[in-house]
Amino acid sequence: MGIVLGPNQYGKAENRVVRVYRDQPRHVVRDLNVSTALRGDFGDAHTTGDQAHILPTDTQKNTAFAFAKKHGVDEIEDYALVLGRHFLEVPVVTAAQIEVDEYAWERIDVAGQGHDHAFVRKGQELRTTLVIVESGAGEPRATVTSGVKDLVLLKTTGSEFRGFYIDEYTTLQPTDDRIMATSLTARWRYAHLEVEWTKAYDSIRSLVLERFATVYSLALQQTLYEIGRAVLTAHTEVMEMTLVAPNKHHFAVDLSPYGLDNPGEVFIAADRPYGLIQATVLRDDEGQQGSDG
Amino acid sequence: MGIVLGPNQYGKAENRVVRVYRDQPRHVVRDLNVSTALRGDFGDAHTTGDQAHILPTDTQKNTAFAFAKKHGVDEIEDYALVLGRHFLEVPVVTAAQIEVDEYAWERIDVAGQGHDHAFVRKGQELRTTLVIVESGAGEPRATVTSGVKDLVLLKTTGSEFRGFYIDEYTTLQPTDDRIMATSLTARWRYAHLEVEWTKAYDSIRSLVLERFATVYSLALQQTLYEIGRAVLTAHTEVMEMTLVAPNKHHFAVDLSPYGLDNPGEVFIAADRPYGLIQATVLRDDEGQQGSDG
Amino acid sequence: MGIVLGPNQYGKAENRVVRVYRDQPRHVVRDLNVSTALRGDFGDAHTTGDQAHILPTDTQKNTAFAFAKKHGVDEIEDYALVLGRHFLEVPVVTAAQIEVDEYAWERIDVAGQGHDHAFVRKGQELRTTLVIVESGAGEPRATVTSGVKDLVLLKTTGSEFRGFYIDEYTTLQPTDDRIMATSLTARWRYAHLEVEWTKAYDSIRSLVLERFATVYSLALQQTLYEIGRAVLTAHTEVMEMTLVAPNKHHFAVDLSPYGLDNPGEVFIAADRPYGLIQATVLRDDEGQQGSDG
Amino acid sequence: MGIVLGPNQYGKAENRVVRVYRDQPRHVVRDLNVSTALRGDFGDAHTTGDQAHILPTDTQKNTAFAFAKKHGVDEIEDYALVLGRHFLEVPVVTAAQIEVDEYAWERIDVAGQGHDHAFVRKGQELRTTLVIVESGAGEPRATVTSGVKDLVLLKTTGSEFRGFYIDEYTTLQPTDDRIMATSLTARWRYAHLEVEWTKAYDSIRSLVLERFATVYSLALQQTLYEIGRAVLTAHTEVMEMTLVAPNKHHFAVDLSPYGLDNPGEVFIAADRPYGLIQATVLRDDEGQQGSDG
Repeated sequence: MGIVLGPNQYGKAENRVVRVYRDQPRHVVRDLNVSTALRGDFGDAHTTGDQAHILPTDTQKNTAFAFAKKHGVDEIEDYALVLGRHFLEVPVVTAAQIEVDEYAWERIDVAGQGHDHAFVRKGQELRTTLVIVESGAGEPRATVTSGVKDLVLLKTTGSEFRGFYIDEYTTLQPTDDRIMATSLTARWRYAHLEVEWTKAYDSIRSLVLERFATVYSLALQQTLYEIGRAVLTAHTEVMEMTLVAPNKHHFAVDLSPYGLDNPGEVFIAADRPYGLIQATVLRDDEGQQGSDG
Repeated sequence: MGIVLGPNQYGKAENRVVRVYRDQPRHVVRDLNVSTALRGDFGDAHTTGDQAHILPTDTQKNTAFAFAKKHGVDEIEDYALVLGRHFLEVPVVTAAQIEVDEYAWERIDVAGQGHDHAFVRKGQELRTTLVIVESGAGEPRATVTSGVKDLVLLKTTGSEFRGFYIDEYTTLQPTDDRIMATSLTARWRYAHLEVEWTKAYDSIRSLVLERFATVYSLALQQTLYEIGRAVLTAHTEVMEMTLVAPNKHHFAVDLSPYGLDNPGEVFIAADRPYGLIQATVLRDDEGQQGSDG
Repeated sequence: MGIVLGPNQYGKAENRVVRVYRDQPRHVVRDLNVSTALRGDFGDAHTTGDQAHILPTDTQKNTAFAFAKKHGVDEIEDYALVLGRHFLEVPVVTAAQIEVDEYAWERIDVAGQGHDHAFVRKGQELRTTLVIVESGAGEPRATVTSGVKDLVLLKTTGSEFRGFYIDEYTTLQPTDDRIMATSLTARWRYAHLEVEWTKAYDSIRSLVLERFATVYSLALQQTLYEIGRAVLTAHTEVMEMTLVAPNKHHFAVDLSPYGLDNPGEVFIAADRPYGLIQATVLRDDEGQQGSDG
Repeated sequence: MGIVLGPNQYGKAENRVVRVYRDQPRHVVRDLNVSTALRGDFGDAHTTGDQAHILPTDTQKNTAFAFAKKHGVDEIEDYALVLGRHFLEVPVVTAAQIEVDEYAWERIDVAGQGHDHAFVRKGQELRTTLVIVESGAGEPRATVTSGVKDLVLLKTTGSEFRGFYIDEYTTLQPTDDRIMATSLTARWRYAHLEVEWTKAYDSIRSLVLERFATVYSLALQQTLYEIGRAVLTAHTEVMEMTLVAPNKHHFAVDLSPYGLDNPGEVFIAADRPYGLIQATVLRDDEGQQGSDG
């Protein structure tokens, strides 16, 4: 029974690419964290140390920066696609994976007007995309999965948790009114590439917020499902949505030792442990596994 | 030559107090990180282990949560003041220091309206206050120093750095156009307690942003000074302002090896090392060392 | 085309379980970070909000702590197995995944002897295990994948990188002597459960270190492969090993502007970007997909 | 009442300087995080933007790396002293502050021998120094304050907390047996520069560990004081020691709902809030404020 190389990939992670558009007085800034990874027949690099087929991670970095100039960064999805397709031209590479996180900035308000070239970071959430370009019979095939990361949400009522399974280790009391809070990470896979990326992103992000706010929650699971269902219903170009949600617990503090009642007014926000809920919502007859090339 | 106990203090750090106001359909949420520390004659606790004068840090925690109910958290400055004055009543305590960081939330927009009880985290910056209440002759004396932490700013032009001192280890080229970026922490000490805290905070934060945006910068030092000067000029209730600003370097990437020019369009954002500029701006004839009790 | 629930799981993450054995004067401490996750038919919880089949994450937490007393934490693998098998008894649960990270402590040395009950944290690396228990036809089936996380390694010579593929974006110069450094995460899957876990862990960790040290490296890929090959050769109970290694770049600093040469003596350690190399080494005729139940 | 510039300083923070000694087959590696800061009359840089007296932080960085070659890094204290004295030669500079954290590495063990050029990170604690060189009448004056950071300690018994002050918000029960754990940061100021730095460091670190282990603790305050007293007693060259210790709480878990007792065996390690104890121990007749120049 021999020993062999199994799945492997390599690349350059977390290239902090900042692109400024300054051909107009009103500058635009795109602030990205770009990670690239290549897959293919890199057996020799591992087993004999022969690097003849290895495009250095340093070159991948150079390319990420060069393409920010050459092709621009209008939308992170398009930037990732052109980068992925480029790497697929390297001999022996069979798949390129490009991951981009974008930090948002908003113009500083000066006398009621957004300033031309001064910005303040907006939120802690990130807009993300994960693009995979693969070779195969015919044209390369591209899959675009975009998302939002670290969208921190909280509702102060409209959330219950009851009727759950009880065993000998259960001490939790059912509640019909609690704080529900999470730092949501969502990713959605597009059926094809004929998408107005930013318009879709804005619309999906709004839907996520709106569903979180207005769905009366019987559990975090149900809220996540309702978010996914709403997005897939409104966006036919989305094939599936995956949601990862830590349940950031807020425990009501017992103030009775000090003669105070606490009808849902004072909470301690806990760090660890936290619930962790993960769910994918998808179309039930998905004939199509990825986006078109 | 004997060995003795010198300066010391103890307290409970990072109490994550969340206060919900729900007596109206439109809920309000205040999300705080509260740290308390006490100073006084705690020699015995250290030298003999006698804890008779030690109010446990656990009790300090309980008090922080109880006061969020009993006295509310309308403004972090007032909440910290009432907490600090309370601790000063403990025997042997001569000073109480209360530090509060507040996380901002904004209402989720649903159909053009802010939702009643659903919120999304707003920015990564924190509003802060540091309150010290000290005993002395007469009434306890309180000093309020408020601020903003992690205000991430960037301007894509309007910043130069030239004419600096050159020695044998200097390789930096002067520049008349660069990206200037920082994650600003600012604190300002109030002369007295007759302040509308939130109104003052909003106004000072706006001034900080406005100065950062519109001052043509000859160096980060000059920008900081201009910010401090503007705040002290507009706010007579502020006695001094301290600014701590990492210079978050953005280096223009050399794209010439690939036949591309780079007129200030593509940058790499560096993590470490970073410049670190610290400055205090104050009134030159300050007869008053702190806020009134 | 309908919308349905896809893959999902839920659990309690990062339970910080600390277990002290104190029945002998010489105490033993086990310091764990335990995450549990359950899979099964939880469709109703998502689609209708009916939680009848949901064992709360709070109960999972309780069980993790209770089992640390009831069954002890002699080896993290055995603790995870008993926890996983227990959760599989919950109706509708078809798989339980238990992840344990263990922090190492060593006894404080007092006069040449390890102290009975005082400890200092040893290293920043973690010993890990990931246990999955699944139902099926017959007995539940368990898979144990153990590992080490954040093992920070550095060699000051004995590493080259040359002969790589060159394209128009390549500026990297080949080198025959560089610093190689990484923060290694390795996981290895056991063929069965008849393993002396700690003995195996210690032996595999030693092999990893020994291979990193003594293999003359032609690339990080080759070093990872040699590590995997050595482990699978020496440990017939290991079926596959996955290695994830950031290439923590150390760049030689150009000191020539100050009239100093730098023959591999002064480096700057960079944070981002970093190379990221991932590889799996496995047996080529693996008839067995997991560990036995 | 005018507005003026108050205290200010600037420098380059977190230069990750790695120095390899390779003139012998047995390499030595010193892995540092170096921060420099300058004080002096930099008023113009702030008020008019004139940078004529500003040595760029980029130059400070260059110097930190160049000096690692030119003067070596045998001991972090000596390296910091030479760097600080150098910066004091820059016109208008009146004080230079050099802060160095050192990461520890140990040789990888291969067949019972430490390897010549392969290393594994040892512990998460850092050895630190803070050197301030100031001009004045006569020779510059240097103060060396060395220390250890993030020394994570835990004892499973031998710690009580009782007899404390009780008020209306106190719910804590006294205990005569608890886990005591902390992540200690200690700094000690030397009286002069005639010190064998590494020998002193090793001895002080051992004393800290020994005192933590063997002092029966009536409170964390008492343990800190005993550590300080022991160090000042044994090391006449140390003038004062400051200790900062978060009380990393470990709460015994109530297992009675599951019919299990818990005599100090199962704990949950909490993240926040934490107690925070700070104390300085010093000589009572200190005629000397700093180290000699």
